[in-house]
Amino acid sequence: MVNTSTTPLIAHRLTRVEINVDCGEAFGLWEGGPDEELMPMIDAANIACGGHAGDPVIMRRAVALAKKYGVKVGAHPGFPDKAGFGRRRLDMSAEQAYAEMLFQVGALKAFLDEADVPLNHIKPHGMWYIMMQNNEDVNDAAMRAIAHFKVPVYGLPNTLHESGAKKYGIPFIPEAFVDVNYTTEGVLLGVPGSRKMSPEEIYVATRSLGKEGLVPSVHHVPVDVGVRGKPFTLCLHSDFKGCRENVAAARRAVDEVNKELYSESL
Amino acid sequence: MVNTSTTPLIAHRLTRVEINVDCGEAFGLWEGGPDEELMPMIDAANIACGGHAGDPVIMRRAVALAKKYGVKVGAHPGFPDKAGFGRRRLDMSAEQAYAEMLFQVGALKAFLDEADVPLNHIKPHGMWYIMMQNNEDVNDAAMRAIAHFKVPVYGLPNTLHESGAKKYGIPFIPEAFVDVNYTTEGVLLGVPGSRKMSPEEIYVATRSLGKEGLVPSVHHVPVDVGVRGKPFTLCLHSDFKGCRENVAAARRAVDEVNKELYSESL
Amino acid sequence: MVNTSTTPLIAHRLTRVEINVDCGEAFGLWEGGPDEELMPMIDAANIACGGHAGDPVIMRRAVALAKKYGVKVGAHPGFPDKAGFGRRRLDMSAEQAYAEMLFQVGALKAFLDEADVPLNHIKPHGMWYIMMQNNEDVNDAAMRAIAHFKVPVYGLPNTLHESGAKKYGIPFIPEAFVDVNYTTEGVLLGVPGSRKMSPEEIYVATRSLGKEGLVPSVHHVPVDVGVRGKPFTLCLHSDFKGCRENVAAARRAVDEVNKELYSESL
Amino acid sequence: MVNTSTTPLIAHRLTRVEINVDCGEAFGLWEGGPDEELMPMIDAANIACGGHAGDPVIMRRAVALAKKYGVKVGAHPGFPDKAGFGRRRLDMSAEQAYAEMLFQVGALKAFLDEADVPLNHIKPHGMWYIMMQNNEDVNDAAMRAIAHFKVPVYGLPNTLHESGAKKYGIPFIPEAFVDVNYTTEGVLLGVPGSRKMSPEEIYVATRSLGKEGLVPSVHHVPVDVGVRGKPFTLCLHSDFKGCRENVAAARRAVDEVNKELYSESL
Repeated sequence: MVNTSTTPLIAHRLTRVEINVDCGEAFGLWEGGPDEELMPMIDAANIACGGHAGDPVIMRRAVALAKKYGVKVGAHPGFPDKAGFGRRRLDMSAEQAYAEMLFQVGALKAFLDEADVPLNHIKPHGMWYIMMQNNEDVNDAAMRAIAHFKVPVYGLPNTLHESGAKKYGIPFIPEAFVDVNYTTEGVLLGVPGSRKMSPEEIYVATRSLGKEGLVPSVHHVPVDVGVRGKPFTLCLHSDFKGCRENVAAARRAVDEVNKELYSESL
Repeated sequence: MVNTSTTPLIAHRLTRVEINVDCGEAFGLWEGGPDEELMPMIDAANIACGGHAGDPVIMRRAVALAKKYGVKVGAHPGFPDKAGFGRRRLDMSAEQAYAEMLFQVGALKAFLDEADVPLNHIKPHGMWYIMMQNNEDVNDAAMRAIAHFKVPVYGLPNTLHESGAKKYGIPFIPEAFVDVNYTTEGVLLGVPGSRKMSPEEIYVATRSLGKEGLVPSVHHVPVDVGVRGKPFTLCLHSDFKGCRENVAAARRAVDEVNKELYSESL
Repeated sequence: MVNTSTTPLIAHRLTRVEINVDCGEAFGLWEGGPDEELMPMIDAANIACGGHAGDPVIMRRAVALAKKYGVKVGAHPGFPDKAGFGRRRLDMSAEQAYAEMLFQVGALKAFLDEADVPLNHIKPHGMWYIMMQNNEDVNDAAMRAIAHFKVPVYGLPNTLHESGAKKYGIPFIPEAFVDVNYTTEGVLLGVPGSRKMSPEEIYVATRSLGKEGLVPSVHHVPVDVGVRGKPFTLCLHSDFKGCRENVAAARRAVDEVNKELYSESL
Repeated sequence: MVNTSTTPLIAHRLTRVEINVDCGEAFGLWEGGPDEELMPMIDAANIACGGHAGDPVIMRRAVALAKKYGVKVGAHPGFPDKAGFGRRRLDMSAEQAYAEMLFQVGALKAFLDEADVPLNHIKPHGMWYIMMQNNEDVNDAAMRAIAHFKVPVYGLPNTLHESGAKKYGIPFIPEAFVDVNYTTEGVLLGVPGSRKMSPEEIYVATRSLGKEGLVPSVHHVPVDVGVRGKPFTLCLHSDFKGCRENVAAARRAVDEVNKELYSESL
């Protein structure tokens, strides 16, 4: 057992809209996003675990940075494919996917334990996350592994993310995206396939999400992505050129939404 | 903190001579040693952690195998260099070496936690282990990381292995080798640099180690390797062609020594 | 231009049945097949190019071995995925697949040039080869790259292998398999998905192929794989446990077929 | 034989000072330097070959870019260590180093052949280059491989670079550095170990090199690096933050020096 404590360390429910960003997405001397500039603006950091990005030094530094800024830390496991940054399909058997998830989250936990920071959540990266929303085998193998860590999973409402979490007794925290797009049917697209969103578009889309649960699809049609009227966590990418401006715009919108809708929780 | 328990799960002292073997040294479809044939003959398995060898599936299967045969499990972290199998020098900064150790042991712990098997010890692999015996910077960075896991380290007596363990409060279990060689001065050589030892030589050397603490050096001169008159753990390699015969020969000798010297502990 | 010579160095047509085997499929200290034992029994070696297997030293040694035994050398490019040994799908764009092919064959050519051995043919490995038989995009990108080297490609008759070669002006040498299986519809399966063939089955299947162009499918039904009545090259794997016996059995059958059908060409 | 032509395609001697820059130093989705912005300012591009950086697509694009801007192309082989970017020591046997050099340059040649661009020179990267200046075994293995390609090598005058080239009949083109430093004894340091040079310092140092053959050491003392009074090639790095300004400053200084000293060669 990973955690036999009967008192959960981790809040399993959001009381207001939050922002999460993928962090620690560097590798060796290859640079990732501007983590330290983003940390002050976000609520939770998903730290890459050496699969699609990250290495031991990068992971350890990202944990220290999150601790410094009081940001919650989640594991951000990705396909073991640095060349493809975890954004292309990699065929893994259920056994491989299950073990890969344990391996990556386990590695991150060593740095969390060292820093005395709890693991807040798990959120798979890129194509793994995308495939989990509608591929039952892929989702199942991942969820069975995630369940070991007894922390919430971030995922897309009304997809296999949510039903899989329920099936394996994993607290589910609904997530939405504004810097990558959904199809008109509400299927999340990956980074390739999405259009570039300006900070202004991100501000507007975030407000719309927070107030109406609607976000413009890749074809500009508003789609309901399942977060209407309830707190959710909003994901933003740190590897996009304008990520500082994107996160700042989203932060502004999220703060407004929280003040308007969830001020009693502050 | 990795383990706040006040009751140690792990025996920190040997009461008789044991045999440890590096296991889980496969990678993807690349084969490692005959773990399942060796397990019944050994006391402890050092499981590769994805650095020099091992991948999530291999690690998980090796843990299951060790559990099946009641073999104690240690972590066997190696330089992150599969092409070189961790047997060539890889320059790492102290920060890199420290973080690498946490990463690899942390990853293995996920599989141990899943299988409800305790981490018994840590033993670095190949060139990492070799360098730690007499390079203070390399030894220090590794030992600082090892200390987090609150389990014994296997190492060479009267080298930095032993003094470093003491410095960082790590229980130290003395180790000796018979299928690779020491210099006449008692410095352990790696696999390259050693001569091939036959099962018969291994049997004789193991008895000599157990009874006198002496082992033939690479130049055939008997050297005292610091285990005279006390229990130690004997390492054997699973990637050598004749490993089954080597381990069987050592097992026979160890059983004899244990009966002659440590029978009260059985 | 890769080769401006107007006199082809390479025979673009077979005059009798040949045997080709994938060689150089080791990596660092990870072992591959018993190349030196197989070389005396085969006509052509497909040398791995560092994608699914192989590294510079392995490639150079494999070229030297082929030269020593007078075996023709082909390039055996595979998906750049050593963990998966090129036997699982890896999504590559057309640009990536095209460039990957040039890279790997170019690298092998350096060793061929050094040893003054001509490049005899190109034959993609594993899942790449499998996908090329019926995926037009994958086949096209690969064939466009192969065309640069002005040597024949080995491939499956009556598939995109053959039509793609024709489209890009590449000499086509028909290939057939006996140690992995075809579906009843004649689609080649990869190593996973095939049943284990004994040397005796291989002997019988090879004779059947040579005389009738028929081979037992994965479901044991004889299938026509397009080589009836004409010379072809027969592929055997060097990474199967019984590969020595497999190749010896196939050699015996091929020699008989050649004597019976193509003796005038000897 | 790599090139049997009796008419060299490559000028083996400089007639004025040139600038070379390492290009194609990206990898998968990991970004490298701003190649396209630098190309118009330089004479020769050293293209990474998949060792320390580069992959097939990156290499092919870098060759196309060099062709577009009329920039000469050299091979820039590095230690096969993307995590370390070829800037840390990696132990390779002479056989490994020799084969690695053939592999990487051979791979680049495929893209040069495709684009009908000649290979202009070879220049090892990072720690490989650094070690070759004074480690005879490392230098020898590399030079023996370089000799196969019958093109000049860029290297440091009055070091093993120059004597090794002479020993193996390789045309030698003297190189000097201004954005990394030499010791006061004239030994080139790698990127780690050098101090940051401003564009203004680079301008001054380049003029000093061109006119006097002197460059400020890491301790600011002027050192003679063997290029006094003769044309040489000046290396600048594309992975430094201010590389655009660095290259522009060096270009200005080189143009001035060429006008003052080598105008008859224009």
